[in-house]
Amino acid sequence: MTDKLIYSGKAKQMWTTDDEDVLRVIYMDQATALNGKKKDKIVGKGRLNNKISSLIFEYLKKNGIKTHFVQKISETEELVKKVKIVPLEMVTRNVAAGHFSTRFGVKEGLIFESPVEEMYFKSDELDDPFINESQTHALKIATHEELNTMWEISRKVNRLLTDLFESIGLQLVDFKLEFGKTKEQEIILADEFSPDNCRLWDLKSKQHMDKDVYRRDLGSLTSVYKEVLERLQKKLGGPSND
Amino acid sequence: MTDKLIYSGKAKQMWTTDDEDVLRVIYMDQATALNGKKKDKIVGKGRLNNKISSLIFEYLKKNGIKTHFVQKISETEELVKKVKIVPLEMVTRNVAAGHFSTRFGVKEGLIFESPVEEMYFKSDELDDPFINESQTHALKIATHEELNTMWEISRKVNRLLTDLFESIGLQLVDFKLEFGKTKEQEIILADEFSPDNCRLWDLKSKQHMDKDVYRRDLGSLTSVYKEVLERLQKKLGGPSND
Repeated sequence: MTDKLIYSGKAKQMWTTDDEDVLRVIYMDQATALNGKKKDKIVGKGRLNNKISSLIFEYLKKNGIKTHFVQKISETEELVKKVKIVPLEMVTRNVAAGHFSTRFGVKEGLIFESPVEEMYFKSDELDDPFINESQTHALKIATHEELNTMWEISRKVNRLLTDLFESIGLQLVDFKLEFGKTKEQEIILADEFSPDNCRLWDLKSKQHMDKDVYRRDLGSLTSVYKEVLERLQKKLGGPSND
Repeated sequence: MTDKLIYSGKAKQMWTTDDEDVLRVIYMDQATALNGKKKDKIVGKGRLNNKISSLIFEYLKKNGIKTHFVQKISETEELVKKVKIVPLEMVTRNVAAGHFSTRFGVKEGLIFESPVEEMYFKSDELDDPFINESQTHALKIATHEELNTMWEISRKVNRLLTDLFESIGLQLVDFKLEFGKTKEQEIILADEFSPDNCRLWDLKSKQHMDKDVYRRDLGSLTSVYKEVLERLQKKLGGPSND
């Protein structure tokens, strides 16, 4: 059977496989920001994101989080369970930065007493608008129970990864998760976890170790992603086929 | 004692009185839209808003809603209890319109199965940004209990006014409430209720009977406000000194 391209996004492609429940993800050498208004080819980025995300998803899996991740199969590819993506970006913020800081006039670096939780409706035409729970119900995007499940998983992920990153000298400032529904209607973690969709600050130097390096033109994106990967590998070993 | 001006807003002024717990509100002949970017003097508007808002607040009071309203004292003035305003606009939507429709690409007129509830952070510099509950906690704007109280009152107001307006041939599409804290720390309804901060559509003709007439240049604002006032007066009588 020939594999078919079923999704081509800003930095990833998804292809069918012989197993109808499994998809192949290709991480591309592409970076975008400002909802696609800024866009560049960055050699090596696909490989780095695939490696980082595989390590993180394997770590989350080991710690009881159900994810779509099956396995990394090459430098830039992984296999994932086919799910129906819930069209929401679930954002958790431990520290004020980026959009939150500009929106509310709060200095970057303010540590929240308890994490801030935000949702964005995934829609390219609408520019991924910020959305609240009552709006998701009105637009029939997700039920109260589904949102609860996604926030419960997000909170576990936050606890696990805040500790993991702290142990390698990084502060997990904020991150975005996406979820999908399996054919059994179970909600599991999907998408990726990489410095593309989180903010990591070096605990000592406060240096940006994430996509803000690209968004804000602060230097070489691949060299900071490589640093994050190396610290993770030192801590976690693997990924298995590396 | 000389009265002192303590607040001068887009369409109202507030003055101290001899009673330190009571303020005098003056409704001005001014209309603004787009957060003050559009601004015009409209003769007669202050008088109409004062009359409509007095009637509505008296009606809400009779029906068990605690408000800051004391009494209407002239064509354009009323007395209100002094409160500390909670810097949130609490918006309830029964039908898709305006900002909601553009934000989410939904046609105006869609009736929600249950009302949509939104909050905006009152801040001129920040352009009153849309805010969710977890952000209000992080910014220490309001506690969970305070928000619950405000939403409970909003829901009662929605039930009372949806019925009231329906009985005079108008659909209550959406509205914005503001709340304040008394010196006893009780949260009560504040601000005003007029076609400046709600949407009313004629049930038969679907004609706009609110500030959208001004925002969208649909004709004479005062003639539709006058029509709303006359229908209310026919139904409710008063206000007492009219």
